[in-house]
Amino acid sequence: MDTKRNIQQEALDYHANGRPGKIKVVPTKNTKTQRDLSLAYSPGVAEPCLKIKENQEDVYKYTAKGNLVAVISNGTAVLGLGNIGPEASKPVMEGKGVLFKIFADIDVFDLELNTKSIDEFVTVVKALEPTFGGVNLEDIKAPECFEIERRLKEEMNIPVMHDDQHGTAMISGAALLNALEVVDKDITTIKMVVSGAGAAAVACSRMYLNLGVSKDNITMFDVDGVINHERTNLDESRMFFARDTGNISMADALVAADVFIGLSAGNILSQDMIRSMAKDPIVFAMANPNPEITYDDAVAARPDIIMATGRSDYPNQVNNVLGFPFIFRGALDVRATAINEEMKMAAAYALAALAKQPVPEIVTKAYGLKSMTFGRDYIIPKPLDPRLLSTVAPAIAKAAMETGVARKPIEDFEAYKLELNERLGINNSIIRLVNAKARQNPQRIVFAEADNTKVLKAAQIAEEEGFAFPILLGNEKRINQLIGEHKIELKNPVIIDPRSDA
Amino acid sequence: MDTKRNIQQEALDYHANGRPGKIKVVPTKNTKTQRDLSLAYSPGVAEPCLKIKENQEDVYKYTAKGNLVAVISNGTAVLGLGNIGPEASKPVMEGKGVLFKIFADIDVFDLELNTKSIDEFVTVVKALEPTFGGVNLEDIKAPECFEIERRLKEEMNIPVMHDDQHGTAMISGAALLNALEVVDKDITTIKMVVSGAGAAAVACSRMYLNLGVSKDNITMFDVDGVINHERTNLDESRMFFARDTGNISMADALVAADVFIGLSAGNILSQDMIRSMAKDPIVFAMANPNPEITYDDAVAARPDIIMATGRSDYPNQVNNVLGFPFIFRGALDVRATAINEEMKMAAAYALAALAKQPVPEIVTKAYGLKSMTFGRDYIIPKPLDPRLLSTVAPAIAKAAMETGVARKPIEDFEAYKLELNERLGINNSIIRLVNAKARQNPQRIVFAEADNTKVLKAAQIAEEEGFAFPILLGNEKRINQLIGEHKIELKNPVIIDPRSDA
Repeated sequence: MDTKRNIQQEALDYHANGRPGKIKVVPTKNTKTQRDLSLAYSPGVAEPCLKIKENQEDVYKYTAKGNLVAVISNGTAVLGLGNIGPEASKPVMEGKGVLFKIFADIDVFDLELNTKSIDEFVTVVKALEPTFGGVNLEDIKAPECFEIERRLKEEMNIPVMHDDQHGTAMISGAALLNALEVVDKDITTIKMVVSGAGAAAVACSRMYLNLGVSKDNITMFDVDGVINHERTNLDESRMFFARDTGNISMADALVAADVFIGLSAGNILSQDMIRSMAKDPIVFAMANPNPEITYDDAVAARPDIIMATGRSDYPNQVNNVLGFPFIFRGALDVRATAINEEMKMAAAYALAALAKQPVPEIVTKAYGLKSMTFGRDYIIPKPLDPRLLSTVAPAIAKAAMETGVARKPIEDFEAYKLELNERLGINNSIIRLVNAKARQNPQRIVFAEADNTKVLKAAQIAEEEGFAFPILLGNEKRINQLIGEHKIELKNPVIIDPRSDA
Repeated sequence: MDTKRNIQQEALDYHANGRPGKIKVVPTKNTKTQRDLSLAYSPGVAEPCLKIKENQEDVYKYTAKGNLVAVISNGTAVLGLGNIGPEASKPVMEGKGVLFKIFADIDVFDLELNTKSIDEFVTVVKALEPTFGGVNLEDIKAPECFEIERRLKEEMNIPVMHDDQHGTAMISGAALLNALEVVDKDITTIKMVVSGAGAAAVACSRMYLNLGVSKDNITMFDVDGVINHERTNLDESRMFFARDTGNISMADALVAADVFIGLSAGNILSQDMIRSMAKDPIVFAMANPNPEITYDDAVAARPDIIMATGRSDYPNQVNNVLGFPFIFRGALDVRATAINEEMKMAAAYALAALAKQPVPEIVTKAYGLKSMTFGRDYIIPKPLDPRLLSTVAPAIAKAAMETGVARKPIEDFEAYKLELNERLGINNSIIRLVNAKARQNPQRIVFAEADNTKVLKAAQIAEEEGFAFPILLGNEKRINQLIGEHKIELKNPVIIDPRSDA
């Protein structure tokens, strides 16, 4: 039996079953009567049109613009899959929209563009400005992504952010601040090695500079070796980090280094390299899905390590979902004209501060832990922490106001936080938490009529999710046959046939 | 009291109250557990991405593309409001999306573009091709709309239609076919006068040519007079209809004419002009909101007239909602690469044929009529007729298949019609019909605690919708005060104060 193939099939079914894809667009106002329709469309709709014509800002009052973000990609650097094209990127962009919705109640139009030209990409997104409250650029390859983002930020009056660059930067920035606090090191003097020189690595390194790291203390590597002044054919964004290092290897650079930042590829960091690092080494191995070194190997090499990865199955997951939903929520809510450096730093500081707060029991239990306290194994908040929205979004809003990019400042931050907490209702975060809590104390659950593929699949899911030890009722021979045919994964299926005399 | 102002305010409130605007984007798949999210996004989402990379058509299997239409405008010719700009057009585009959804279950991203350049408009829409299953162009001014549509149709592989042109053409085409059948005239010999030479007028006239009208029998007028070969500064699309008429006036052209087509401006057609027309004159006065001549004046001038307008309060409403939802439904369902002339004609013939079918009682009653039968007052179906979807969409699908533009032909049309009837559920069309039916027999309805603005507004709506004679319970003085303050419109409010001794 092949678990991996089953999960792959499940992902395909999830997307294909029922209405293909993951999103739909629905009316928010009544449309039941002829009268409703005469307000929603002709002739009533002329009224908001005329108001907006008089005062363009009224578009935020009468349309969905103010809560609408475009997730835009050309599919040139999708997940770890590379340049798979705009059509093949669509499931990711729809999925990003789903995350925006469930974590921050933001409506998303996912747009996949058939262009690799910087000029054309910029032309298209600029033309779309009246439609949206903000633009999240996604999975665009470097170096094009730098110029695209820079030009759009300069030329547009709504917030634009390339999440692949800045999301990871903010979240790993928060993790770095806290890791340094745990080991009591001064950010201005730490020695850092960065593995990877793509869009995320460059943006992260720039964020760390803003947070206090000295440029002279960063040594950056790409697949061809160290970024030094002798390198040719590297664009400006990478050459910014060039130093006079000579032709040093990453292993040499890591000797006595305080921090390793991995945004490159799986399994390129050895235990010996980690052993050579300074006391209390900080290792963020963020390559996906396989980190630069496995969590277990890293921790085995150095008991004094602080380790973070992109994986949900180990402590300290650096996950972009900790950032983008809340950053855009805050930016939209003050009608920010930009997402600037100060706002990104505010997000990092807010995330770092939240990790130092006592963790509510519901979060602790959701992750199957007895307790969770600020320290080596908990330097950043968990993605399902329901406090994220009302912590990060207000920090972003405040930073926007302080830097003069908020067109609609928030007057009462306490009221705003309450509003944020009410936005998602209980449906969203709580059910995810309750489900996770059920895993704490898995129960034997009887699945009647288990000689049925659907029931067997349900049993498999309950077992995999970790909240049940399934007991299957039904004809044993038939059940085993179905398990074989449909590659059902059950560890030790207990089968009871109520019709047998046994 | 000012009814018009109240309705205007109500339209503004409808758009502004609660979540601003009229649409939201929601997930269609489960997103409650961590497991759900691992299928919707990383890592599970990589599977559909890879499938689509292998076979691009799979984008229809794993994403919302196949049911997703872009409603795109630059706001240069919005309703009767003219060039109000992209922001001010957004309420209309959202509203169009709402109509697509409730009449045909099509998901719409409304996109408002900040460009008046033909080239840039074309560049933007072409780049968006991977995102959508179809493109509905909307409210773009002539003559730019002609070139934009022509180029997009040539250069894109998904259906593109400028509804302002072709929607009215198909629906008035259906009405023309049926009107001619009622009065037993031959389409190839009728004399027609067209008032207006905008995008809709040109497209309608071209449709009538396709349906059999002779070009020599069409005389077209714009605001400067007849379109003849002596005119200068007219673009190709209009000059196509130029004839050697000399400098004839519209009044002269109408003498003995069989058909008047109005797509121009209110009140430009006189009773005398209608009186001069041939026996059984056909007058489609489709200017909005005020037709070229009022229904009452037209009918008073000629008892043998067949009259249609764009208004819902008179017989024979030419309403685009009879067309676009079903045309795109059919085109999407066969993955058509285009909406071609044959498909548009198929829509016209299907609409014409439906009007000759017996009308279900629920439709008749919905419109407050005892009966509705094919004839002078019923030449096209009513917008709320629930048979439209399963009549027009299959006709479009079939025409697409017959003309070789269907990439996924329908194999079982009976099953397809059943599927269409199930698509909207009872929620949609039936409630609108039931609501309308309640108007047949309005009842006295007691509104308790009527000394409350919300209750008074409800009473007003019930009275305006025509299904209730409200009786208000509460303090009479207070009620009258509120009616005055809030400009509540009640014709003859019956107020009973349960606490008074009277």
